[in-house]
Amino acid sequence: MTNDLTLRPIGWVGSELVDPATAPRQGDEGAPEAWIEIRDDLREAVADLPVGTEVLLLTWLDRADRDVVFVHPRDDADRPRESVFLTRSPHRPNPVGLHQVRVLGVEGARVRVGGLEALDGTPVLDIKPVLGPVELR
Amino acid sequence: MTNDLTLRPIGWVGSELVDPATAPRQGDEGAPEAWIEIRDDLREAVADLPVGTEVLLLTWLDRADRDVVFVHPRDDADRPRESVFLTRSPHRPNPVGLHQVRVLGVEGARVRVGGLEALDGTPVLDIKPVLGPVELR
Repeated sequence: MTNDLTLRPIGWVGSELVDPATAPRQGDEGAPEAWIEIRDDLREAVADLPVGTEVLLLTWLDRADRDVVFVHPRDDADRPRESVFLTRSPHRPNPVGLHQVRVLGVEGARVRVGGLEALDGTPVLDIKPVLGPVELR
Repeated sequence: MTNDLTLRPIGWVGSELVDPATAPRQGDEGAPEAWIEIRDDLREAVADLPVGTEVLLLTWLDRADRDVVFVHPRDDADRPRESVFLTRSPHRPNPVGLHQVRVLGVEGARVRVGGLEALDGTPVLDIKPVLGPVELR
């Protein structure tokens, strides 16, 4: 049983993106390449990541506001407020980011990925294959 | 800043599935309908969920083993062990479940969904639209 609800990062994002105000909002909106700096004890677990294919990356959006439940979509005050559960706003009770990125290469405990909109220093929680319930169709 | 890495469930799964050994492994493998019992203070945030459409549900797979890094895919001992990051095994350092489910109805703070393989009592972390980086294509 995992009664422990505390996340343990498997790594951190290394990116040129440092300013939430100017960062792309989605990976397909001009997001740059980035490094995933994996914990050294998990180095072997990323050795066989499939270079050239897309994976799902889960992050912890540590600069988000967890007390927000309703937002103006895309911070546009002209759009009526919506529940965060209807949007991809980073501000939400559990700010888990979900990113579909291409694996460009693996160098030891560092994984190079393309098109990641997460900010430098963002904790990484998980890497999953693009398969199963979130299958492309 | 969200230095706090502790999850706060937004609700819990109410399901007929109670035994990990016999539960379906994926939502499209005969998973049943289930309730999402949302925290009462978040009742208004689920009122406008789009009935009849699919959403992404993030859960905390609280019966998973967080110390597992390599697994036999689908518990098949004849298959070579792989990194959990190459599989959808629930056993992984941060056992966040990702489920694409259809919203069947909303009754106050309860949301009925179709095709959810999560076990009864599983904490729910987030609800997101099927949009953006995990866009269907």
